[in-house]
Amino acid sequence: MIEKIERMAMLFDFYGKLLTKKQREMLSLHYEHDLSLGEIAEENGVSRQAVHDVLKRSEKILEGYERELGLLRKYTVERERLEKALGLVDGLTGNDSLKDEIRRAIKEVLDLQNVD
Amino acid sequence: MIEKIERMAMLFDFYGKLLTKKQREMLSLHYEHDLSLGEIAEENGVSRQAVHDVLKRSEKILEGYERELGLLRKYTVERERLEKALGLVDGLTGNDSLKDEIRRAIKEVLDLQNVD
Repeated sequence: MIEKIERMAMLFDFYGKLLTKKQREMLSLHYEHDLSLGEIAEENGVSRQAVHDVLKRSEKILEGYERELGLLRKYTVERERLEKALGLVDGLTGNDSLKDEIRRAIKEVLDLQNVD
Repeated sequence: MIEKIERMAMLFDFYGKLLTKKQREMLSLHYEHDLSLGEIAEENGVSRQAVHDVLKRSEKILEGYERELGLLRKYTVERERLEKALGLVDGLTGNDSLKDEIRRAIKEVLDLQNVD
C-alpha cells in the first residue's frame, strides 16, 4: 500500500499537469495530504463513491502516460547512475576544484530531475 | 524554418506516443522523412488541406505537452550539463580506471535521454 501511495505521488509529480483541475485537487488531497476518501468527499460536498471514481480514473490516466512516456522509469535509472557517478568522483584523489566542478554539474542535473 | 523542423522532430520524439496513429504517421512523413504536404496527401488519398489541418493540430498538441511537461527544455539543459561534466572528467589527471567508470555512468544517462 505504501508502495502504491509513493508511486501515485510520483506519477502525480510527473504528469499531474495533464489532469483536470478537479482530478488534480482530489489526487493531491489523497496522495500528498493523506486525506481519506470520506474526508475528501465531505470537504467537496460529494459522495465517497464520486471521490473513489475520480481517483480511480485519474490513476488510470497517470499509469497510461507512464506506459507511453516512462518518465518515472527513466528518472529512477538516471538518478541511480548520477548518484553512482557522484560517489565515484568522491573516490578520486587530488584535483579538488575540478572535482567540485564535476559534482556541481552532476548535481544540477539531479536538481533538474526533481519534479516540483 | 530549419529550426521549426528540428523542434517539431524533437517534440515528436518526446510526445509522439501521445498522438493518434494518423497524426503520428503524417508528422513522421513530414518531419522525419521530409515529404511535402502534397506528397503526403497523394500517398494517403486525401486533400492537401486535410494534411495541413492534421499537421497544424498535431503541432498544437505537441506544443501543449511541452508547455506542461517541458521535456525538451529539460533535456537541453541536462545534456549541456552532462557534456560539461564529461569534458571536466577528461581534464582530471591520473585515476584512469575510475575516470572511465565515471564517464560510463554519465554516458548511460545521456543514452537514456536519447529518445527513440
